[in-house]
Amino acid sequence: MKLEKNSAGRFVPTTVNGEKQIPFKGIGKHKPSGRIAAPPIRSCADYPSDGNKIVKNLKEALKKAGLKNGMTISTHHHLRNGDVVTNLLFDTIKSMGIKNIRWFPSASFPCHQHLIKYLEDGTIHHIEGSMNGPLGKFTTEGKMKGIGVLRSHGGRYQSIQDGEVHVDIAVIAAPTADPFGNATGDRGPSACGLLGFALADSEYADNVIVVTDNLVPFPCYPWQIQGNNVDTVVQVDSLGDPSKIVSGTTEITKSPDRLLIAEYVAQFMEDAGIMKNGFSFQAGAGGTNLAFAVYLKERMKEKGIKARFIRGGSTKYLVEMLEEGLTDYILDGQTFDLEGVRSMRENANHVNTSPFTSYNYHGKGNFASIIDAVVLGATEVDVNFNANVVSHSDGYLLHGIGGWQNCLFSKCTILAIPSFRDRIPVIMDEVTTLCGPGELIDVIITERGIAINPKRKDLLKAVKNSKLPYKTITEIQKEVYDICGGVPEKPKTDKNKVVAVIKWVDGTVLDSVYKIKK
Amino acid sequence: MKLEKNSAGRFVPTTVNGEKQIPFKGIGKHKPSGRIAAPPIRSCADYPSDGNKIVKNLKEALKKAGLKNGMTISTHHHLRNGDVVTNLLFDTIKSMGIKNIRWFPSASFPCHQHLIKYLEDGTIHHIEGSMNGPLGKFTTEGKMKGIGVLRSHGGRYQSIQDGEVHVDIAVIAAPTADPFGNATGDRGPSACGLLGFALADSEYADNVIVVTDNLVPFPCYPWQIQGNNVDTVVQVDSLGDPSKIVSGTTEITKSPDRLLIAEYVAQFMEDAGIMKNGFSFQAGAGGTNLAFAVYLKERMKEKGIKARFIRGGSTKYLVEMLEEGLTDYILDGQTFDLEGVRSMRENANHVNTSPFTSYNYHGKGNFASIIDAVVLGATEVDVNFNANVVSHSDGYLLHGIGGWQNCLFSKCTILAIPSFRDRIPVIMDEVTTLCGPGELIDVIITERGIAINPKRKDLLKAVKNSKLPYKTITEIQKEVYDICGGVPEKPKTDKNKVVAVIKWVDGTVLDSVYKIKK
Repeated sequence: MKLEKNSAGRFVPTTVNGEKQIPFKGIGKHKPSGRIAAPPIRSCADYPSDGNKIVKNLKEALKKAGLKNGMTISTHHHLRNGDVVTNLLFDTIKSMGIKNIRWFPSASFPCHQHLIKYLEDGTIHHIEGSMNGPLGKFTTEGKMKGIGVLRSHGGRYQSIQDGEVHVDIAVIAAPTADPFGNATGDRGPSACGLLGFALADSEYADNVIVVTDNLVPFPCYPWQIQGNNVDTVVQVDSLGDPSKIVSGTTEITKSPDRLLIAEYVAQFMEDAGIMKNGFSFQAGAGGTNLAFAVYLKERMKEKGIKARFIRGGSTKYLVEMLEEGLTDYILDGQTFDLEGVRSMRENANHVNTSPFTSYNYHGKGNFASIIDAVVLGATEVDVNFNANVVSHSDGYLLHGIGGWQNCLFSKCTILAIPSFRDRIPVIMDEVTTLCGPGELIDVIITERGIAINPKRKDLLKAVKNSKLPYKTITEIQKEVYDICGGVPEKPKTDKNKVVAVIKWVDGTVLDSVYKIKK
Repeated sequence: MKLEKNSAGRFVPTTVNGEKQIPFKGIGKHKPSGRIAAPPIRSCADYPSDGNKIVKNLKEALKKAGLKNGMTISTHHHLRNGDVVTNLLFDTIKSMGIKNIRWFPSASFPCHQHLIKYLEDGTIHHIEGSMNGPLGKFTTEGKMKGIGVLRSHGGRYQSIQDGEVHVDIAVIAAPTADPFGNATGDRGPSACGLLGFALADSEYADNVIVVTDNLVPFPCYPWQIQGNNVDTVVQVDSLGDPSKIVSGTTEITKSPDRLLIAEYVAQFMEDAGIMKNGFSFQAGAGGTNLAFAVYLKERMKEKGIKARFIRGGSTKYLVEMLEEGLTDYILDGQTFDLEGVRSMRENANHVNTSPFTSYNYHGKGNFASIIDAVVLGATEVDVNFNANVVSHSDGYLLHGIGGWQNCLFSKCTILAIPSFRDRIPVIMDEVTTLCGPGELIDVIITERGIAINPKRKDLLKAVKNSKLPYKTITEIQKEVYDICGGVPEKPKTDKNKVVAVIKWVDGTVLDSVYKIKK
C-alpha cells in the first residue's frame, strides 16, 4: 500500500479500494472540477400510471432493482440503534446469494453488530460510513476485506453528488410513506423525525426502495423524500424498536466537571459578544451540550436576547426555546427525542434540513459557515488545536464523524471537552487520528480552563475583561499530564496496514486509521 | 426548412433553431436515453462564508454571471401580468450591449409587450416558452428571428432536466428572500404564492440570480428556492404591481351557457362514480372551472363526500373546500388569488408543488396521472377528440400550454368548453394546432351535450343511467355547424414557414405553427 504525506503532515494511501485518492491539500485548497453525477433519464411510461409502486417484499424490490454482486447499497441511520431494516436487508441479500456489497450507510450503530457475519462471509466487502462500536472494533483489528472510508454528513452528500460514490440501490426506511414513494419521518409508529440523511441517496441512486411500516394514501405529506425519485415501495410489519429510534427524553449530564464546562461555554459566548439579538448557534445532544443550552437559555432570558435560529440535532431543550420565543427557528438535521419529533411535526418553524442545505462543501455555500457559534465534542485535541472525533487514544475506531467536520466552518467553533477521561489525557501532543485541522478550531473549553486559538486575536481581545480561566493550551495540557502521570502511551499499530481513511469535507484524504497490533 | 410527418400525422421541422428534433412518436412511445443534465461541481470556498451573496444591482449580477451574446436566460411567470423584473432584466441586458439571447420564460404575459423592441433589435433572438397575447401575434406574423418553442410546464422541466435546454443564467423574482438566496413566494409586498416554475432553473442553470423586494435575515423560510443553488442576490424597490400579480378575488362565470357546462361537469363526475370518498380532482381558474368547483362542492356536501386532495391553481373556492374539511390537501402549482396565497402561507395542508413533482414526464412517475379527474379548457377540439389550447381558429398563437398537456394523463380528462365562440365552432374536423392527442381526452362537455370518447367503454357504461344529454362528438359538431353556418374557414398560412413548434411532454415535436398570410 503506497502512502503519501498530505498537507496536514499525515500519511494517507494514494489508492483506496482500487480507487485513486487525492491527499488533503489544506482548507479550501482543493478546487473540484467536472460535473455532478447525472442519473439516467427516466420515463413515466415505465412506472405505474396510478402511482402505486408497491411490490410484495424487499427481495422482490431488490430483484426489480437488478441487485448484483459488487453493488453499492446505501441506508440511512435515522432509526439509530432501533433499526431492523438494515439487518433485514442484508439477511435478504445473503439469502439471494449476493456477495461483495459495498455498504454505504450514513452511520452505523451497535445494532448493526448483526452484520459482522456478513463482513466475515463476504456478503459485505467493506463499509463506507461510520464504523461505530462493534463494527469499529472489527475494522480496527484489520478484519474487514476492504478499507473503511469515513466521511462527514456533508462529505457523504458531496461524495454522492460528485459521483465519487455511485449508489446502485438506496434502501430508505420510512416511518410513513404512500404507494408513490413520498415519505416522511415525522409520524408513524416508528417516527424518527426526519429523513434528510437519505436525501442524496434518493436523488442520485440508480434505484430507490422505500420501506415503510405505515402506509398512507397518496399524498404522504410532508414528503421529506419525494416519490418522484422512488422506484418501489415495500411494506414491512415494523421498522424497528421505537424506544431505540428516539429517546423518550434526553438527559443533561450530572457530572460536576461537565456542568462546569457547560457553564464556561455559556459564559464564554456571553463574554465574547456572540450571544446577542439575532445570533445563531448549534449544539449537539451530548450531556454537556444539553447543559450548555440550558445555561445559555437562562442567560438569554435574563438579558432579553433572542436567537434568529438554532441548529439541531433537536431535543426538548431546544424545543422549549422555540416554544418560549427565544428563537425564530430550529433548523434541524435530526431529532434526538420525542419532543423533537413532535415539534418538527407540529411547528412550521421547526424546519427539516438536510446535508445538502447544511453541510455539502461542494455547493454554492451551506448553512454551517453562517452560524455564529457551534459547540462540539472531541475524543482528543492537540496543542495545535487539531482534533479527533472517531477514535480514542487506544487507536480503536469507535465513532463516526457525523456533522462534526462540517460544523467546524462556523464563525466560532468551540470544543467543550473534559481535559481527561478515565485518567487518560484528552489534550495530546498530536492527535491519534486527525479529523479537524486546528486552524478551524477556535476555542477549547475544559473544566480546568479555556484555551483560545492564538490566531483568533479578535476573540482574545473580545474576552479581555472576562473572568473565566483563560490559559494556553499547553498550560492546560501540563496540568493534565501532572494529574494523569505524563504522556499517554501511543497505541501499537501496523503503519503498513491502513484499515480506514478519514475523508475531508471536499473528498480529499485527511488521515489514516491503522490496524491495531494486539 | 425540412418537415417530416409525425405519428400524429402532423408535419414538423426536423431541425429547430439549429437543433435536431425528434418528431412525436405516440403516447409513451419515445424512450429517452442518456443521463440528465449535470451542473459543474461547486465549492463553498468560492462563495462568501457568511452567506451574504448580495450584489449591488442586476447589472453587477449579470456581469458576475458572465453574461455573453447568445446565452439562454430564464425567468418565471409567477408574477403574471404584474411582472416588472423581466422587463428590467432585458433593459439591463440591452444597456450592456448584449445580443441574441434565447429567452426561456415559464410563460409570458401581455406586460411583456415591452420586450417586442428587443425581439426587433436583436437583443432577444427568440422565445422558448409561451407566446401569449402580443408576443403570440408578433411570432405568428413571422417577425421573430428564431423559431418559438412551446412546452408544457412539465415539458419545460423535462427539457432542462434532460439537458435539451441549457440555461446559462436564471433570474428568479422572489417576493421574499434572504442574503443566502433562500426564497419564497408566499409572503412580502409582491407575494405570488409559490415559485415552483423556477425550481428547475434554480437546480440546473449555471448561474442563479435571485431578485427580491423583501429581504429578510437568514433563514427565509419556507425556502421554495434553496439558497444552496443561488449565486447572487439583488435587491430592487419592487417586483411589480401586486394587483396584477394575484387577483384580489377570482370570479365565477356569469354566462348561463358556461354555468350549464359547469353543472354538467359536476353531475357527470357524480354519475360516473368519480366523486367518491378519497377521490381527487384538478380544475383550473377559468370562470367555468370555478363554477364547476362550486357545484361539485355542493354535491360533495350533500352526499357527505370528502376528497383526498385537490390540485390547484388555487382560488378562494378551493381554499374554502380545504377549510371546510372537504379535502385533506390542496396540492398547488400556483395561487390565483389572495386567498390562495394566504392559505398557502398559513395552512400546512395547502402544499407547494412543482413541475417536478406534478408534471415531469421524464421522472419516476408524477402526480398528474394519479388524479381521478381533471377539468380543462381548450380553444378547439376535433371529432377525434384531439385538442388545441395555444391558438384559435384564426391561426394566431395566443396562449401557452401551461400544465394542460401534463394534466391529460389523469384517469379522466374532461374538456369543459362552449361549442362555439363568437359564432366560430369550437368542434372542428381537425384542430388548427394539435396540442393534445385525442386518445388522452376522455370526455368533452359542452352546453349542448356531452361526448364520451368511444374508447372509454368503462365511462360509457358507468353513465348508462345518467340523465345528462350524451351525444356523439359528431352529433354535437353538426348542431354547431348548423348554428354557425357551416365549416369555419381555415386560416391562410405559409406552410413553408414554421414560426413555432409545439413540444409533447417527452420533448418530441407534436405540431407546427405556421406564419399567417395577411
